[in-house]
Amino acid sequence: MWYFFSMTHNLNNGPDRPPVTKYYLELDPPTGDDPVADLDRLLRALVKVGVEDVTVPLFVAAKVPGALKAGGYKVTAAVSAPPLPTLLAVQPGDTTARKLGLAVDLGTTNVVGALVDMITGETLSERSELNPQTAIGEDILTRIHHCLRPGGLEELQACAVSCISSIAEGLAMQAGCAPDDILCVSVAGNTTMAHLLLGLDPYNICRAPYIPVANSFGPVRARDIGLAVAPEAPVFVLPNVGSYVGGDVLAGVLVSGMTAREDISLLVDIGTNAEIVVGNRDWLLVGAGAAGPALEGGVVRFGMRATNGAIDRVVIDPSSFEPSFTVIGGSAPVGLCGSALIDLLAELFTTGLIDGRGRFSDPSKSARIVELDGKYAYVVARLRESGSATDIIFSETDIENLVRTKAAMYTALSVVTRELGVAFSELADFFIAGTFGAYIAADKALAIGMVPDIDLSKYKLLGNSSLTGAVRVLTSTGALQEIGRIARMITYKEMNVSSDFMSEFRAAMFLPHTDEGLFRSAKKRERA
Amino acid sequence: MWYFFSMTHNLNNGPDRPPVTKYYLELDPPTGDDPVADLDRLLRALVKVGVEDVTVPLFVAAKVPGALKAGGYKVTAAVSAPPLPTLLAVQPGDTTARKLGLAVDLGTTNVVGALVDMITGETLSERSELNPQTAIGEDILTRIHHCLRPGGLEELQACAVSCISSIAEGLAMQAGCAPDDILCVSVAGNTTMAHLLLGLDPYNICRAPYIPVANSFGPVRARDIGLAVAPEAPVFVLPNVGSYVGGDVLAGVLVSGMTAREDISLLVDIGTNAEIVVGNRDWLLVGAGAAGPALEGGVVRFGMRATNGAIDRVVIDPSSFEPSFTVIGGSAPVGLCGSALIDLLAELFTTGLIDGRGRFSDPSKSARIVELDGKYAYVVARLRESGSATDIIFSETDIENLVRTKAAMYTALSVVTRELGVAFSELADFFIAGTFGAYIAADKALAIGMVPDIDLSKYKLLGNSSLTGAVRVLTSTGALQEIGRIARMITYKEMNVSSDFMSEFRAAMFLPHTDEGLFRSAKKRERA
Repeated sequence: MWYFFSMTHNLNNGPDRPPVTKYYLELDPPTGDDPVADLDRLLRALVKVGVEDVTVPLFVAAKVPGALKAGGYKVTAAVSAPPLPTLLAVQPGDTTARKLGLAVDLGTTNVVGALVDMITGETLSERSELNPQTAIGEDILTRIHHCLRPGGLEELQACAVSCISSIAEGLAMQAGCAPDDILCVSVAGNTTMAHLLLGLDPYNICRAPYIPVANSFGPVRARDIGLAVAPEAPVFVLPNVGSYVGGDVLAGVLVSGMTAREDISLLVDIGTNAEIVVGNRDWLLVGAGAAGPALEGGVVRFGMRATNGAIDRVVIDPSSFEPSFTVIGGSAPVGLCGSALIDLLAELFTTGLIDGRGRFSDPSKSARIVELDGKYAYVVARLRESGSATDIIFSETDIENLVRTKAAMYTALSVVTRELGVAFSELADFFIAGTFGAYIAADKALAIGMVPDIDLSKYKLLGNSSLTGAVRVLTSTGALQEIGRIARMITYKEMNVSSDFMSEFRAAMFLPHTDEGLFRSAKKRERA
Repeated sequence: MWYFFSMTHNLNNGPDRPPVTKYYLELDPPTGDDPVADLDRLLRALVKVGVEDVTVPLFVAAKVPGALKAGGYKVTAAVSAPPLPTLLAVQPGDTTARKLGLAVDLGTTNVVGALVDMITGETLSERSELNPQTAIGEDILTRIHHCLRPGGLEELQACAVSCISSIAEGLAMQAGCAPDDILCVSVAGNTTMAHLLLGLDPYNICRAPYIPVANSFGPVRARDIGLAVAPEAPVFVLPNVGSYVGGDVLAGVLVSGMTAREDISLLVDIGTNAEIVVGNRDWLLVGAGAAGPALEGGVVRFGMRATNGAIDRVVIDPSSFEPSFTVIGGSAPVGLCGSALIDLLAELFTTGLIDGRGRFSDPSKSARIVELDGKYAYVVARLRESGSATDIIFSETDIENLVRTKAAMYTALSVVTRELGVAFSELADFFIAGTFGAYIAADKALAIGMVPDIDLSKYKLLGNSSLTGAVRVLTSTGALQEIGRIARMITYKEMNVSSDFMSEFRAAMFLPHTDEGLFRSAKKRERA
């Protein structure tokens, strides 16, 4: 089934420019011969520097006389970009040297903000907070259901707004400025997170035929949602394409640059779902499937998010079978984050401790292999090495779940590309996006057959491309226009209802794959 | 001294159309094959009827799914006129038969609202309330000073908003609809009243060099000032030209039609000040002077506003010198409103009871003439006829004050026209605007030399043209554009600093005038 989502509004093409421009203006003080109104005096000065037809929100107009007085008729005016140039703020004196924006990756679990110098595009500092919505529901479905309660949506919106406000305040304090100095905000998140931030009911996002309230959002002023930045600051919430493709994914596509190229690339955004985007400057196909839970700590016993105490890298010595690992934050380990799970699975397989079906082939090979409830497990960290209350183990049940995840990912990649008649070998680049994606070791993912057997140099980790995309929006209206163009280009492929999917999936439930021919280089490396 | 006020924004020319248009749309319900977002579905339907590039405020977007559900995907969309077509509301079902707007004359003393059918332009009902700001200060200066107190401006703004909201609610209830059904608001008032409504500090309006915060106001949404109508309803506050020429006067000029004509007309708006506008389709000169207090009950002992109990018409029998009068509301009289004062002065003069200097020439002529504190007075209503606790009298002191007022008015008219080299006889029409103006008898005003001696048929009473102008704005964007054009055309003449003024004024302090040649027809009528 093919879906096409069109966007009919809020996007227009025009020359690229920053979304906010500051102008330092020295006005003539009023006299009997020139008693022009304060606001008209300001607008007259703006016209002199070429800025015409500026809309003045009431609340800004009200502050003009005070700013003129405080600045001795020398003020800085912040004006948003066309098509509707709007006076966002008037500050006493010359403040043109500083033009601050806030970029936000509004994740289901973590919210990351970056304070951006909109003149240079440089990120001055970053700040991450746990999304307070997690206290209401860890996963998105729980939160959508919470909206059925009276006041539930408002509660979740308040969580998102207060979290971003808190990040804005923290970043502003760090930078020695006021939250009001933040003149523009851009937010990238999935469809549900965008809806919750804006107070739009997400009810139908998770119910067939999966209808969001809106695919693009605008115009939103900080004041409209109560965000603690300059009250008139435009808040650009990146658009989504239907229920499955959020602004976070579109940001990734933007950052990858794949839509500027003639050759075909693939991008996979790994979060709770894995969204796969294939295309070039002319077309884009998106498919999505549930892929992430195992990697986010959902189905593996010692799985956890990539925070302090999580083991993120594991190597197993091929002779002694002893592990060595690194821990985020450098403390004693308490669990395994997604990249460690992939490392572990790859190392257990390439060292021959487990076979292609994910079973420990000879438990006597290492004292690290223990039996628990009739299944074998590998002890990654013993109690004495561990900050947790018990051994950190990785069991055959965990392996089975992880193989299921990697099989789902590979199958999705396979189905989407086959649909297009594009072979993996034809891909110019393979982008891995998402916070989680930043930590994946491509060679390990390849070794377990999670990603296809292509030249390792083609794998490009984009890191938190949701945030990077939001940062771009703060320095160029062209970036937002390009995201709009990307959204309009997208054709959506519903993955789980595809007839190919289940048979492909079963074939991929093996390390690296039942069809060894698909992973020749993995085999080669394994033998080497 | 000549002032020129320019407006650089918020006005654009385009085809005339109503400020709000309603579209009845029958949408296809979503299916698996057409899972377009609710908002995009609505916008798609709008595009089909030729409405493109519609901006959707966040709060309207949030209500779209509910309206679609309630209306079974049959809804009415209300969209504001270009240049920035905005989705104002989405109502379930077909509501196109009803499109309501609220026009407001925001007077210093009285606030009058009209519920307007924006399809026919018809006024469905009117409602008037005392401006609750009068409890804080009767006159404008007191209110401006009140803004120096912390929270003072906010308090006055809340008064204006709650008064208009109360009128909106009353009118809506009368019409059997909800205040939310009011989709557009237009407000005409003087410069200070506009500032107070919008929360703009009026501090400098009354201080040299008399600088308002703004001359034009936009865009304002009902939500922004907390008005109890549809939250996104555009509120058009008519522009002002500097401190003295308010939107109420501009509305009068619009209603008069004088700026559509080649021949030259004059308009005088009589309130606390008397603003005089002279011009045609090519140019406009405005002069203003304090003229009204005596007519509004400020300086005449039994003067009062034109409300219940006020005598509004007086005739004195030339033989018996007995008065006959009408009272507003039909009750017993308690005072004299402005039109009665003019009638009285004219009747006392034409019956010969008083002379050209305003003195009772022969107190023995009538038992109605009494002596009080060494001055004579005419008893208009005796205690037994009166609802007041005493006789209603009109004394020589009152006459002196009233003559001062009429002299100021005539002088202002004279100075402004002479400045332009326009003789009174050349005026095509002489418009009298303002609530007070509606009651003036032109022949009486002429008899006392308040207005010039021209053909009586040229006097046109516009009534509450402030309200009429606001009503026009609700049915045509062209009306607002024309008001903007009028504002830009205006050249302002500061009256009281003119060197001619004082000598002219002294000459006019006589009934009808020291120069009898100026009032030949008055003299003729007097003799007849």
